Amino acid sequence: MISVCVVGATGYTGSEVMRLLTNHPEFEVKIATSRADTGKSVAEFWPALRGHIDLAFSAPEIDNMAQAEVIFFATPNGTAMTQAPELLNRGCKVIDLSADFRLNDLDSWSEWYGQTHACPELVPTAVYGLPELYRDTIKQASIVANPGCYPTAVVLGLLPLLELGLIDPKSIIADTKSGVSGAGRGLNTGKLYGEVSEDFKAYAVSGHRHHPEIVQVLDDVAKTPVGLTFVPHLLPMFRGMQATIYANLTSDIDALEAIFKERYQDHPFVDILPDGSCPETASVKASNYCRIACQIDASNNRVIVLSVIDNLVKGAAGQAIQNANLMSGLSENTGLLGAPVCP
Amino acid sequence: MISVCVVGATGYTGSEVMRLLTNHPEFEVKIATSRADTGKSVAEFWPALRGHIDLAFSAPEIDNMAQAEVIFFATPNGTAMTQAPELLNRGCKVIDLSADFRLNDLDSWSEWYGQTHACPELVPTAVYGLPELYRDTIKQASIVANPGCYPTAVVLGLLPLLELGLIDPKSIIADTKSGVSGAGRGLNTGKLYGEVSEDFKAYAVSGHRHHPEIVQVLDDVAKTPVGLTFVPHLLPMFRGMQATIYANLTSDIDALEAIFKERYQDHPFVDILPDGSCPETASVKASNYCRIACQIDASNNRVIVLSVIDNLVKGAAGQAIQNANLMSGLSENTGLLGAPVCP
Amino acid sequence: MISVCVVGATGYTGSEVMRLLTNHPEFEVKIATSRADTGKSVAEFWPALRGHIDLAFSAPEIDNMAQAEVIFFATPNGTAMTQAPELLNRGCKVIDLSADFRLNDLDSWSEWYGQTHACPELVPTAVYGLPELYRDTIKQASIVANPGCYPTAVVLGLLPLLELGLIDPKSIIADTKSGVSGAGRGLNTGKLYGEVSEDFKAYAVSGHRHHPEIVQVLDDVAKTPVGLTFVPHLLPMFRGMQATIYANLTSDIDALEAIFKERYQDHPFVDILPDGSCPETASVKASNYCRIACQIDASNNRVIVLSVIDNLVKGAAGQAIQNANLMSGLSENTGLLGAPVCP
Amino acid sequence: MISVCVVGATGYTGSEVMRLLTNHPEFEVKIATSRADTGKSVAEFWPALRGHIDLAFSAPEIDNMAQAEVIFFATPNGTAMTQAPELLNRGCKVIDLSADFRLNDLDSWSEWYGQTHACPELVPTAVYGLPELYRDTIKQASIVANPGCYPTAVVLGLLPLLELGLIDPKSIIADTKSGVSGAGRGLNTGKLYGEVSEDFKAYAVSGHRHHPEIVQVLDDVAKTPVGLTFVPHLLPMFRGMQATIYANLTSDIDALEAIFKERYQDHPFVDILPDGSCPETASVKASNYCRIACQIDASNNRVIVLSVIDNLVKGAAGQAIQNANLMSGLSENTGLLGAPVCP
Repeated sequence: MISVCVVGATGYTGSEVMRLLTNHPEFEVKIATSRADTGKSVAEFWPALRGHIDLAFSAPEIDNMAQAEVIFFATPNGTAMTQAPELLNRGCKVIDLSADFRLNDLDSWSEWYGQTHACPELVPTAVYGLPELYRDTIKQASIVANPGCYPTAVVLGLLPLLELGLIDPKSIIADTKSGVSGAGRGLNTGKLYGEVSEDFKAYAVSGHRHHPEIVQVLDDVAKTPVGLTFVPHLLPMFRGMQATIYANLTSDIDALEAIFKERYQDHPFVDILPDGSCPETASVKASNYCRIACQIDASNNRVIVLSVIDNLVKGAAGQAIQNANLMSGLSENTGLLGAPVCP
Repeated sequence: MISVCVVGATGYTGSEVMRLLTNHPEFEVKIATSRADTGKSVAEFWPALRGHIDLAFSAPEIDNMAQAEVIFFATPNGTAMTQAPELLNRGCKVIDLSADFRLNDLDSWSEWYGQTHACPELVPTAVYGLPELYRDTIKQASIVANPGCYPTAVVLGLLPLLELGLIDPKSIIADTKSGVSGAGRGLNTGKLYGEVSEDFKAYAVSGHRHHPEIVQVLDDVAKTPVGLTFVPHLLPMFRGMQATIYANLTSDIDALEAIFKERYQDHPFVDILPDGSCPETASVKASNYCRIACQIDASNNRVIVLSVIDNLVKGAAGQAIQNANLMSGLSENTGLLGAPVCP
Repeated sequence: MISVCVVGATGYTGSEVMRLLTNHPEFEVKIATSRADTGKSVAEFWPALRGHIDLAFSAPEIDNMAQAEVIFFATPNGTAMTQAPELLNRGCKVIDLSADFRLNDLDSWSEWYGQTHACPELVPTAVYGLPELYRDTIKQASIVANPGCYPTAVVLGLLPLLELGLIDPKSIIADTKSGVSGAGRGLNTGKLYGEVSEDFKAYAVSGHRHHPEIVQVLDDVAKTPVGLTFVPHLLPMFRGMQATIYANLTSDIDALEAIFKERYQDHPFVDILPDGSCPETASVKASNYCRIACQIDASNNRVIVLSVIDNLVKGAAGQAIQNANLMSGLSENTGLLGAPVCP
Repeated sequence: MISVCVVGATGYTGSEVMRLLTNHPEFEVKIATSRADTGKSVAEFWPALRGHIDLAFSAPEIDNMAQAEVIFFATPNGTAMTQAPELLNRGCKVIDLSADFRLNDLDSWSEWYGQTHACPELVPTAVYGLPELYRDTIKQASIVANPGCYPTAVVLGLLPLLELGLIDPKSIIADTKSGVSGAGRGLNTGKLYGEVSEDFKAYAVSGHRHHPEIVQVLDDVAKTPVGLTFVPHLLPMFRGMQATIYANLTSDIDALEAIFKERYQDHPFVDILPDGSCPETASVKASNYCRIACQIDASNNRVIVLSVIDNLVKGAAGQAIQNANLMSGLSENTGLLGAPVCP
C-alpha cells in the first residue's frame, strides 16, 4: 500500500479524499492533519467514517506529514505553498487541491489571492492536473495543481470545440451553477442553511478567482487569447455543479456528439450524452464522472454545452486521486469506479 | 367587495391567488372550482387556508362561475379558451393564467400547445398582461393573458435596453432557472421530491413554450426581430426564478442603474439594485416584486442582467391580481404590498 | 402609530419581528439596533425588506432605544436583563424574546444559562407571555418573557389535558422536532447547509434549556410536579416545529377534539383539527397559528397530541407581537392575520 | 459470478439494489425487469448507472427471470407472492423486499394489505430477513422476507433490552421519522417536491402496516405480547430514517453501551455509539449501517434509544443483499462495505 497524508482533513474536500480512499486498493490514509483538532478522533469528527478510518488528527508538521508518500493538500489557499517545497525535498508527491499552484502568472495570482507567493520558483514545475488535457505530464510530475471545480466543468465542455476551431474563441459565455460545498466548510453566514436553502443567486459577477484559471487553460488550448464571460451562481444544494456554456459556431455543424466522443474516447471519466440531452448533476453525485451534452441553436448559429460534475469529486477530491494514480504509475481510474449515488 | 372566482383552485397558482386575496381589501373569493374535487372543503384540501377561506370547491360550470365579477383561470392550457367567450358575454372580467391567449400567431400557438384554438376570434382582444409594458391597455381590457413566468423575468430585464437600443437585438441569451412550482401540481415523476432535491439540470433546451412568447414581446419592444437563445433549468427548490441575461452592448456604457430606475420609476413592483449587485430569489419570496441588477462585462463589451421573481407571484398569481386591480379601476398594488417572507 | 424598537435586528427573530410589523396597522419600527452593523442599511442587510423598512441599524444604547414605546429584545440570552430595568424606568414596554425572564427559579436559570442574573428583582414582575394561559396578566404587564418555541408547542398541546386531569402528569413524553431557524443565526458549523440538509438527528438529549421552562409551566397548570421526558430533534428545513406528545390517559376517553376546541374557543391562534388528523408544519408557515390534533391509542390507553407551529412566528416573533398587542390595549390578533405561505 | 434478477427495477429500491451490486464481487445483475418500460435501456432510465449496467429492462416473465440464480423482488406489495412459488420450483433463491411474506398471520396480512394471499402455503417457509436476529435460519432459506425499514430501525434498537428483560414490554413508544424515499417512486401528490420540502408531519397515526410487523418480531423476542405505540413521520429529505424509542426500565441501570455492544459484537452492520450520543442519519447515508445510541432518563426511569439507518440500504436494498450473501454462502458483508456518503 502507498501511504497517504491528507492535510486539512476537517474540511469537505479533505473528508471526501478520505471517503474515496476507503475504497482504494493501493492508497491508505496513514496521516490526517488538522491544526485546530489535533488529537481528536477522525471518526468522532466525521461519524460517517466510523469503522473506516482509525486515526486521530495529527499536527500539520513536516516531520509528521513526510512519513507519507503522497500528500493531498485540502487546505485553504496559501498553506500548501509554505510546505510543499520541503515535502518535495523529502521525496513526497504533492497534490494541491487549493489554488496555490494553478496560475502561471504570479502577479495575477497575487492579485486574485491577496498574498505574495511563498515559493514562486516551484510554480513552473507544478503540472495543472486536468488528466484529459495534460495526462502525460502529470505522470511525470512531483507536484500537481489540482484544478478548480468551475475550471474542470468549463474546460472539459470546451476542449473539443477549441481544439478543432469550431467556435469563435472570443464569444464564450459560461453560466455556471454550484452546490454550496464548493465554498468549503469555513464558517460564514452565507453558508448557513437558512441562507442557502430555497434561494438562488449569482455571486462574484464582477470577478471570480476561477476566471483567470479558466482563461489560462483555454488560451493554451485555443493558442489564442479567448474572450470569456463567466457568471457563477449558488445552488440550494450541497454537491453538484453545472456549466451551461454558450459560444458562436464558426461553421455549419449539425452534430457534435461524435466529435466529443472521439476526443474523450480514452478518458474514462468523461461521458458524452447524445446531442440535445440534458445531463443532471444528480447523475454524477459522489462519483468522478463529468457528463456532457451539446445542443446546437441553429437559428442563432450558437452551440450550447451542458457539463455536469460533482464539485467535490471530479471538481476536487476525485480528480486529485485520479492525478495521484497517474503520478504513482497506477491505472488512472483505480479506486474511482464507484457508481454515482442516485437517487 | 368585488366577487372573484378561481378556476382550477387545486393547483399551485390557484392556491396562490386565494392566499394573496386573503389580504385584499376589495376582492373576495366567492367561488373556487375544481372538477375532480367538487364538494370538498377548500380548507381541508389546503390546510394553510383553514380559517381564511370558508368554501367548498364547486364545479367549473358557466352558471356557477359567472356569479363572480372577476374570473381567474388557473387551469391547464386549453381550458380557459373554451369558457372565456361565454363568461365575457355575461360581463365577467377574465384573467387567464394559462397560455391560451398569450400568442398572437395562432399557427404558432397550435404548434407549441398541440391543439386547435377554440376561440381564435377572441385572441386579438386579449391584452398581454405585463403592466410595466401595457398598463394602459390592460385597464381597458375585459380579458387579459397573464404572462408566463419566464417571459416576465426575461422581458422586465430587457425592456430598458431594447427600448433605448443599447444592445444588439440579435445577441440575446437568457439562461433561466426556475423552482419546481413553475411546473405546476400535475403528477409526473419529474416533480417528485426524489427527482428534484439535490439535483440541477437544464430542460427543454431544444424548445420551450415560453420561447415564442418572449420573442413576441421582445420583437414588439425592439421593433425588429430579436435573436434569442433561451435555456431553462430546474432548481432544487419550490418558489423562485432567476433569469441571467447576456447581450452585446452597442455602445460604450458604464452604468445602467439610472437607466433602469428611470424606466421603472412608476412601476411599484420593479426594484432596481445598484449595478454589480446580485439579487437573490429569496428576497422576493411570496411577494410580487421583480428585482433587477445589471453588470457590465467591459472586456467583452457585454451586459449581464440578473432578474429575479417569485414565479408563483410576479410570475403568476400576483401579476394576475395586479392585472385584475387595473381592470377593476383599483390601484395597481392593492392587496399586493406584503413584504417577502425571508428568511 | 406606536413606535417600536427591535434590538438585535440582524438575527432571524429580529428580522421576523420587522417583517410581521410591515403589515401592522398600529406599530411602526422606528429603531432597529445592531452592535456589529451599526450604520448599515437594514434593507441592504435584509434585501427582502427593501422598500418596507427605511432605516439604518443604530447602536443598542439606552438613549436611542428608549425613544420607542415598545421594545422587542431579539438578542442572545444575557442581553435583555442588562437593559430592561432602565428601559422600564423610562416607561417603555419590554418584550424579551430571549430566555432572560422565563425561569422563576434563579438558581435553575444560572445553571442552565451559565451566568448570574443581572436583575433578579425584575424576574418576578415579568409575565410569561403565553396568551392562551396568562392573557389577563399579560395585559397588565410592563415586561413579558416571550416563551421559547418548544415550550409553546408542547404546552399548548397539553393544557386541556392537564387542566382537566385527563392524563397522568408523570407520564409525559415530548418528542419534538424543529427547523434549524430555531437555533438562530449565530455562526456555528452545525448550522451550515452541508450539516443540516438531508440529515436528521436528536440533540441535547441529556438536557435542553427548554426542559425546565416547560416543566415550570406544566407544574403550574397541573398543580403538581409533572414528569417529562423531552427529546428535541433537528429537521432539515428552516421554519417549522412539531411536538409529538405522549401521555397515559387516566380514564376512558374516546374523543378529544371537542375538549380542545372548548378550551381554545376564545384564542384565535390555536386551531384544533379533528381527532386523528396529522397537522403539518407547512400549514402554519410564516403565520402565528398553532394547529393541534389528538389521537387516542386505545390499546395502550395513551393519548398522542400533535402540535405544530412556525417556530419563528408563534414560537417567537409572532407571539411577541401578540403579547405587545395585549400590553398595548390592542386586539390580540392585530397585524397577525396573514394566511400561512404554503405551498 | 452469481447471476441476479432485479424485479421492479424502475423503483427506488430496485435501483438501489443495482447500484449496490455494481460494487459486488460475486453477484452480477443479468436481468432487470419492468413491465411498463420493457425494452428501454436501464442506463437511459437511471442515468447514474450509465457505464455500470448495460442492460435493457425485460418483461417480468418467469422464463426470463428464472435464468438468474438470485431474484430480488423490488415490487409493490402483491406481486412477489404470485411469482415466488414457480421461481422456487425452478431452483432460484428469492428475496422479497415487499411485504408479501413478512406477516405470519394471514388474516392480519389480508387486513393490512387489502388482498387475499396468493400462496399462503409458502408463508411459513419464508424467513424474516433480519440477520441480527435470524442469521442461521436465513442461511438455510430459499425465500426471505426482507424486513420493512421501520421494523429494522425499531427492532435493532430494542433487541438487547427485550432479550435481557430490561424494559417493560408494555411501555414501548416508537416515534419514527423517515425520508420520503421510503414511500417509493409511485406517483402521488404527497410525494411531490412542493409537498415534502420544508414540511414535517406525522402520518398513518391510526395505523401503519409496519405496526403488526414490528409487534410480531418483538413478541417473538420478548416471549410475551408487547404494547407498542408507533407514530411514523415524514421528513423533508430523501434518504434516512430515525427511530426514537422510549420504554420504562425495569431495574436501575445506568449504562447500556456495553450491553448493546456485546449483543451486536458479531454483527458488522450495527454500530453502537457511546451512551448519550446522537447518531445522525447522514452518518449512514448510502451505507448498510445501523447506528444506535442509548440515553437513560433517570428521573423518569426511562430509556431512550436512538437508531438510524438509510431506509433504502439497511432498510431495504442493502439488507436484501446482506440476506442474499447469507443465502449464497458468502460472507455477510460482501460488497456492502462502502463508506457512507457524507457530507
